[in-house]
Parts: sequence; structure tokens; C-alpha cells
Amino acid sequence: MKDYTIFELGDVVLQCGLTLRDAKLAYKTFGTLNADKSNVIVYPTWYSGQHYDNEWLIGSGMGLDPEEYFIIIPNMIGNGLSSSPSNTPQPYDKSRFPHVTFYDNVAMQHRLVTEQFGIENIALVIGWSMGAGQTYQWAVSYPDMVERILPFCGSARTSLHNIVFLEGVKFAIQTDAAWHGGWYEEQPMQGLRAVGRVYAGWGLSQAFYREKLYEPMGYSSLEDFLVGFWEGFFLKKDANNLLAMLWTWQNGNIGNTPGFDGNFEQALASIKAKAIVMPGQTDLYFPPEDNEYEVKHMPNAEFVAIPSIWGHFAGGGINSVDTEFIDRHVKALLAS
Amino acid sequence: MKDYTIFELGDVVLQCGLTLRDAKLAYKTFGTLNADKSNVIVYPTWYSGQHYDNEWLIGSGMGLDPEEYFIIIPNMIGNGLSSSPSNTPQPYDKSRFPHVTFYDNVAMQHRLVTEQFGIENIALVIGWSMGAGQTYQWAVSYPDMVERILPFCGSARTSLHNIVFLEGVKFAIQTDAAWHGGWYEEQPMQGLRAVGRVYAGWGLSQAFYREKLYEPMGYSSLEDFLVGFWEGFFLKKDANNLLAMLWTWQNGNIGNTPGFDGNFEQALASIKAKAIVMPGQTDLYFPPEDNEYEVKHMPNAEFVAIPSIWGHFAGGGINSVDTEFIDRHVKALLAS
Repeated sequence: MKDYTIFELGDVVLQCGLTLRDAKLAYKTFGTLNADKSNVIVYPTWYSGQHYDNEWLIGSGMGLDPEEYFIIIPNMIGNGLSSSPSNTPQPYDKSRFPHVTFYDNVAMQHRLVTEQFGIENIALVIGWSMGAGQTYQWAVSYPDMVERILPFCGSARTSLHNIVFLEGVKFAIQTDAAWHGGWYEEQPMQGLRAVGRVYAGWGLSQAFYREKLYEPMGYSSLEDFLVGFWEGFFLKKDANNLLAMLWTWQNGNIGNTPGFDGNFEQALASIKAKAIVMPGQTDLYFPPEDNEYEVKHMPNAEFVAIPSIWGHFAGGGINSVDTEFIDRHVKALLAS
Repeated sequence: MKDYTIFELGDVVLQCGLTLRDAKLAYKTFGTLNADKSNVIVYPTWYSGQHYDNEWLIGSGMGLDPEEYFIIIPNMIGNGLSSSPSNTPQPYDKSRFPHVTFYDNVAMQHRLVTEQFGIENIALVIGWSMGAGQTYQWAVSYPDMVERILPFCGSARTSLHNIVFLEGVKFAIQTDAAWHGGWYEEQPMQGLRAVGRVYAGWGLSQAFYREKLYEPMGYSSLEDFLVGFWEGFFLKKDANNLLAMLWTWQNGNIGNTPGFDGNFEQALASIKAKAIVMPGQTDLYFPPEDNEYEVKHMPNAEFVAIPSIWGHFAGGGINSVDTEFIDRHVKALLAS
């Protein structure tokens, strides 16, 4: 039984000029849309995550409370449930899947929200990592529609260092001969395992490993963590999907929203939503400094770092202390 | 014309139990050994570096002044000049090259210093990165011989996070089918390029990229830097040599010196040399915190971080500000 719904978008012309034909947006909702449609929260997914991976931040008594709010989780294009290299028919399958930006993603999500549900205002857009990228994009693309945003462990423009980190991920896949330029029939398993190893050092902080926090997670050794968590994590993914989303990530920049002509600071200044911008204090590829710069250019934003040694995964929902910290600020932002 | 000398070690029994037969230690010296042999500096090489890569810290008027000191640069085992997978005859060639520790390296360097030159005291051992690892090892293996040490951008024990970072490097090589388990006839070029991409994010800091410091280095874009500097850097290396040195690095731990039974803190406490321990403030794989811990356990050590955004490459000799900072402290330590 599928626990999600497909919204049929038809043919969607993308920023890159290509058309994503019969585009599909997979989504899941929680709670009930109230009479005046004022209780809407949009919560996009992250790099390779699918809607169920977001559910840890939703619950009765939490900020994202389905008894109070109507929460929509749209699956990012390329994540295997929405239109992706792995599920798109020829000739746009696999390596020919077109480049999709955060702007494109949010334009499709906007159609879901307006055409399917008739929603005109969104109380909150929130997201982790690439979900944060989509969150900023919502606030820039639809400034009069989005009341609040809470991007966590992400950025409004992918930094050069972050782009470099992702080059390592990309080359880990592409170095596997089994990748075959994307025209594989079976996944490039060695490449996916290599991605796991490359990612392992970036996803968590130096201090996480120093304190062996993988042990209380149930891993018996460092190698057990590398195989069990990191290789296992990426072996479940499709290589072309990972590469498609990686392109989206590397090209993240709200300055490239039509009308801003690449001007990042002007795009930040255009955000009307009340914002809490929340990096992880020890995030190695979305370092707090980049968010501090953003907040300086946003009219109504507060900078709040998660005091955690879980690196990027401070926002991953794995440890309860960080989850409670995030949830407390979600509640405060929604109440304001 | 070779600018280095080979010291023939004969058969060397290693910590791992295997024998490195007809072992060779390549070295270069600068300056003249004085009459009482009191002006000796040992300056080991780093991951894939060769003796000439160390010369930027040597010069007239600098701390490492060949007019005053007799400076020996021993090439690390596995670096392509000393015994290495690439230059060792069958059956110990390529993938069968035995595992060599920092302890083994320093034992061989000690034989060079004592047997070849009759040296009994060393004024200073200094090294960057894996050279720092050998520096600590000198102070632990020969506490009564080493008067001063200045390990920079390195550690006395390879941290778990550092081990994880190196897993990404290792898998980048091994994922290339052309690696053939080490039995290649031609270098696995894609794997070496992938290593360059993986390394690029780790070697320099987030701030280095944020400020585009590759531009004043002469690179016209980020991609130009990735190809020209990072891929170019590793394409010159031998894949099995990189893997051999990587094993040495991952297994770095002065606590595994015979007599200490794995007790890292006891090994640190045994160091008699006066020390300046000098991390790069923004080094991502040798973070300052690990050195702070070390200094607490060393009897006569000062912690001095290089205030630089060049990450690990604060100690790479590329930028003059960091070089001057290091040199100033070399002078101060030698004068003390």
C-alpha cells in the first residue's frame, strides 16, 4: 500500500529550457485543512530523503502537530518518488533526466498547494538540508504567500566549499565502471559504497567520531558504522537519482530566481517571511558562517545555531536532544 | 641527476611481522654537520610528498638555516623514492608491499642518522601532516636523543574522524576498476582524479573557498582549481604508494610504540623534548582540539595554532603569511 499521492503536473518547462513531460509530484499530508485554509505547513524533503524520512519532526504535542496543522510533505524531484531518472520513461530516463533547480521544484510544489488544495497562504515552510534550500526558495518565489520559514542545516546559496564536497560524492559514483555513464541496468554498487565512505566524514563532526557517538546508536565499531549505516544508507538509492539531486544541490542559489539576475543579496532582502535560520553548530558543509551572512541580508530573520556535535545530522532526527531543540523553535516561530 | 642519496638498510623486520627486504631510505641533506654534531635537524616528509616538497621551510636567514644547521630530510617509506610499492621487486611489490608504521619509519631514519652520520643528539625534529606523525614518533622512540620537536598540522594519534576521511580517499582509488586490486600496469587515472576531488574539500577550509583564495594562486575558476591543482596533484602519484602511505596514516598512534601497550597518554607523557605543537586553526582533518588534548599530556609542550583559513595547507608552504608564522616559531624553539 502506497502511503503517498501523486499530483500530475503535465508538461513542465524547466529553468534549463527542457520540458519535464508528464511530471509527477509525490506528496503526503498530515492533519486536516481548516475552513479558512490558514493552518498550512509545507515541509520539503532532502538529498535522497523521501516523505517518511521527515516524519520524526511531526507529532501530537510537537510544533508540527497534525491535530492543529495541515502538513504537506512534497517529495523533491529526483528522489525516486516524484519524477526522477529512475522512474521517467524514455527518452528522458537515466542520464537524460533534465536538470531541475530549487526554483523548478518549488514552482511545482506551488501548483500542488494552489491547484490541488486551493491554498493561498502558508503558515510555515520548513526543511532540512536541501529541504532548507527549497524553504528559502519558497520565501523568494512567493513572498506574499509564505508567512514564516525555518530552514535548518541548509543554505540559500550552495557555497563553493559545499560544491567541492559534492564533487567528491559525484566522482565516487562515476569512478565505478558499472555506472556506465548512467546507462546501467544494475546499480553501481561499489560506487554507492564509496559514496557512503566519502559522505561519512562530512555528515558528522570530528567531535562526533571523537566521542564515538555511533556506539550508542548500536554500532559495535567504526567499521561497523561505516558499513551498517553509511554504505547501507546509499546502497538503497539509485545512482542517477543521486546525481540528479546533486546537480540541483550544487546549483542552489535563490539569486537565480527570475527577476533577481543572480543577485543573491537582493533575493535575500526580498524575503518577507519571518524567519529562524538554524544551522548545526558543527555542520561541515553548511557551516554557520554562511547562514550568518544570509541573516544579515534578511529583513526579519533570527540566527539560532543548534548546539550539537552531530554535524549536519543535528537536523537528521536521530538524536532526541537536537530534535527537541528544533521543535522548541518551531513552536516559538509558529506562535509568533 | 638525482638530488638525493639512498641509504641501504638491508632487511628490516617491521612491526607487522613481515620483513622489508633490501629496504632503501632516500634522503637529502642541507648544510654541514658541525664538529660536535650538535646542529642536526630531521624533517620527515608527508603524505605523498618527497624531499624537495619540504624545501620551502629551509633557507638562509630562516629557522632551518643550512648555514647554521645540518638538515636531513628522510623520505617516508611508500613515497616513491624510499622503498615503496612502486619500486620494490617481486614478490613484495604493488599490493604485497608490507604495512609500515610511523614507528618503523622512524626506526629506519634513526639508523640513517646514527649509522651513516654518527649523530647522537638531534636539535629539532619537525614535520607537516604525516611528517608531524613521524616527529612525535621520534620523540617517543628516542626520548633522550631528541631535544625539540615542532609537529605542525598533524597528530600523535590519527583520530577516528581522520580515519573516516581517509576511507573516502581509499575508496576513490579502489572503486576504479583499472586499479585491479593493485595489480595494474597503468595507473587508475579516474581513481586518482576522484581522489583529487575528494581531497579538495578536506585540504582547505570552507573559508578558503568562500574567499576564492585559489584565484590569487593563478586558477581562473573553481573547476580550474579542481582540475589544475587537485587532479594534477594526484595524477603524478602511484595508486599503490598512496594506499601504502594511507595505511601508515590511518594506523598512526604513538601509543603503539613497544613498551606502551597502546597507552596513548603514557606515550605522550614520556616525551622529553621541548615541543611546540602547531595545528592549523581551520584544519578539517587535524582539528586543533586533538592537539590541545595532546599538549595537556605532554610535559614540556606549548600549543600554538596557525591563525589561517588555509585549512590543512596552512602548513603546506603555499602562502607566505603562514610560512612566516611557522618560521618565526621554528626560530623561537631553536633559540630556547
